[in-house]
Amino acid sequence: MQKYIVEFIGTFFLVLTIGMTVIDPGGAGAMAPLAIASVLMVMVYAGGHVSGAHYNPAITIAVFLRGKCPAKDVVPYIVAQCAAAAAAAGLVLYFKAGATIAPMTPVVVPALLAEFLFTFALAYVVLNVATAKANAGNSHYGLAIGFIVLAGAYAVGSISGGAFNPAVAIGLSVMGILKWTDLWIHLVADVAGGVAAVVAFKALVKDPG
Amino acid sequence: MQKYIVEFIGTFFLVLTIGMTVIDPGGAGAMAPLAIASVLMVMVYAGGHVSGAHYNPAITIAVFLRGKCPAKDVVPYIVAQCAAAAAAAGLVLYFKAGATIAPMTPVVVPALLAEFLFTFALAYVVLNVATAKANAGNSHYGLAIGFIVLAGAYAVGSISGGAFNPAVAIGLSVMGILKWTDLWIHLVADVAGGVAAVVAFKALVKDPG
Amino acid sequence: MQKYIVEFIGTFFLVLTIGMTVIDPGGAGAMAPLAIASVLMVMVYAGGHVSGAHYNPAITIAVFLRGKCPAKDVVPYIVAQCAAAAAAAGLVLYFKAGATIAPMTPVVVPALLAEFLFTFALAYVVLNVATAKANAGNSHYGLAIGFIVLAGAYAVGSISGGAFNPAVAIGLSVMGILKWTDLWIHLVADVAGGVAAVVAFKALVKDPG
Amino acid sequence: MQKYIVEFIGTFFLVLTIGMTVIDPGGAGAMAPLAIASVLMVMVYAGGHVSGAHYNPAITIAVFLRGKCPAKDVVPYIVAQCAAAAAAAGLVLYFKAGATIAPMTPVVVPALLAEFLFTFALAYVVLNVATAKANAGNSHYGLAIGFIVLAGAYAVGSISGGAFNPAVAIGLSVMGILKWTDLWIHLVADVAGGVAAVVAFKALVKDPG
Repeated sequence: MQKYIVEFIGTFFLVLTIGMTVIDPGGAGAMAPLAIASVLMVMVYAGGHVSGAHYNPAITIAVFLRGKCPAKDVVPYIVAQCAAAAAAAGLVLYFKAGATIAPMTPVVVPALLAEFLFTFALAYVVLNVATAKANAGNSHYGLAIGFIVLAGAYAVGSISGGAFNPAVAIGLSVMGILKWTDLWIHLVADVAGGVAAVVAFKALVKDPG
Repeated sequence: MQKYIVEFIGTFFLVLTIGMTVIDPGGAGAMAPLAIASVLMVMVYAGGHVSGAHYNPAITIAVFLRGKCPAKDVVPYIVAQCAAAAAAAGLVLYFKAGATIAPMTPVVVPALLAEFLFTFALAYVVLNVATAKANAGNSHYGLAIGFIVLAGAYAVGSISGGAFNPAVAIGLSVMGILKWTDLWIHLVADVAGGVAAVVAFKALVKDPG
Repeated sequence: MQKYIVEFIGTFFLVLTIGMTVIDPGGAGAMAPLAIASVLMVMVYAGGHVSGAHYNPAITIAVFLRGKCPAKDVVPYIVAQCAAAAAAAGLVLYFKAGATIAPMTPVVVPALLAEFLFTFALAYVVLNVATAKANAGNSHYGLAIGFIVLAGAYAVGSISGGAFNPAVAIGLSVMGILKWTDLWIHLVADVAGGVAAVVAFKALVKDPG
Repeated sequence: MQKYIVEFIGTFFLVLTIGMTVIDPGGAGAMAPLAIASVLMVMVYAGGHVSGAHYNPAITIAVFLRGKCPAKDVVPYIVAQCAAAAAAAGLVLYFKAGATIAPMTPVVVPALLAEFLFTFALAYVVLNVATAKANAGNSHYGLAIGFIVLAGAYAVGSISGGAFNPAVAIGLSVMGILKWTDLWIHLVADVAGGVAAVVAFKALVKDPG
């Protein structure tokens, strides 16, 4: 149970920061990705020793397939992440009452590709820095995990919304930054990216531990 | 006594950097939260081995309730932090003589909520990265502590002023960035956030050490 | 073979991020170097334990001359890096279809000098933080390697394009950010910078390990 | 001799980055302090194991008074740092030929105070993270040292020029960003800040090692 609450807390602050920094007025403008990467980094450092600090259903699925997340935790983790995202999105709507939020209109194929690629990168980074034996005990795992999201947000945020995380995509939909009819793009591409990262990790790392 | 001086130095540079980067002209504009997070990170790394590097009455109270700050240090720490904040704020007013400073006008309920949430996050991070047995000896504690403040400043700075720290709120009041009549918002919400983080930490971490 | 694929993945995301953040519309504006430094840092942390995480022919040559890359890997590494850069550049052109890309027009001597100096700095940093015995086991090697590129990009990006990496220069040429007739500048200066760093490293570090 | 060359290289890239990012056109605008902090951080990580990575006469004096720099190295270190700063400044003038550089006109007392305070902070950080026994073997020393300069540059750069380093001040004077007649401000205040940090460090750290 402790693990699920830690997943809830981390995902809640991630989605809260996303909504508050992306929606005008009072948003962070061009600095939003730095705020988002920072809160993810920080929550990974804070919660990693309890839950593994996934905060992302695609990562939970990838870590499960990697053999580092018990099967019984997969559904509760995903439920906690999605509930936290929805709760944070609701709170953002409260804080930003009166703001005009125009949903972005992604083009399907580029958006699928962009989400797939950077969710692959995110999961590839997580598996390497946080689960590979050769990297045990390092102090940079949170920095690496947070800042691949910064790179992805600046690179393809305008193409797909830059979720790289199905729970975040749900939060973006609740807030009206994405349309519900586009949510499938993120669900499909992000899970596919996570699974592809597991395949790559298993093929590339000889002694994963 | 050494510990109290270290708390004074760290809080002094934190509030000095806040005032100098937030007040125009010559402020840092959109980069102010990066400067503020950086100085907090740096002062945590510099002073942690002497005083624990709280620089924040809400953190001192939280670490005391966690059992990692002696009771006899609580009041002197808070006095040193508040005195440092006031001194730094006075120096900012000297450097910025002639600048027009319009106090922000927070709406009470959202401001209370914003301050509570991100002070909770800050204290939750401190307790986990700097006091949990599983994270002993890491090199990222300062990075995590500094950059949750960056996330909070970009996310809710425009709602509450983004203090997350009663001593900082006093400094902001001295500088005229906050009104004295709004100070209670930060005192109440920030201490409540710190206490809530202790409750969460004790419930979530099985072997805190 | 695993090592070559890791070099491909890392270089691919590096060049993808460069192209997507530099080309308007939808680029990252003044934040592009932060995104680029971040993705390089992250890919160094993710892939270092498999391939050494060069992602740069000039670094592969430097590490080979330093004695830390087997001779048989040099050509496959460089082929993987250049192929990844070309593939990523092609993908950028797909994502950015319709964008107007005007190639920069570097002045030869300053561009040669700028590329030489910061590729020297990059290779000097890599050799010291990632191959010197005195620094074994550190957690900052990726941060250092990524962020020397940020410094170089802000410092001389407008003079040379700020590649510091022959594979990146090829990617920039495929995207039309550099002219093919200027590519030799980067090939010559970047390899020279890498070789000069090896000379400096061997002269300056008494017990390189 | 190796140590002096490492000091030259680090200070050279520090001052080169400062000049190139501060002078328009083609400068880094509001991001200049990030580039400057990054190159300092990186050069500290790269050169620390050889020379201690001072790159700053005020730091060399402080580390000498702290007992961690041999007396015979003090003058050669300072000569290498100042020579590197002058050389880098000359190179900046070559790269920026044609740019209009208007020297800043600091007001003496605030400028002295600003330089004193942040050079104190810089030296206080260096002594604690890089020379205190309790912090031996950490991976964050470069991050802390680099990013206190970022905080200082955003906080008081517009008041004093934000050198916090006599060698940098010489470089700024060669480039025409500071007037030669104002150089004494930085020499006096920066050395005083460094000395004050040694006094504070010795009084505050019980077992410095």
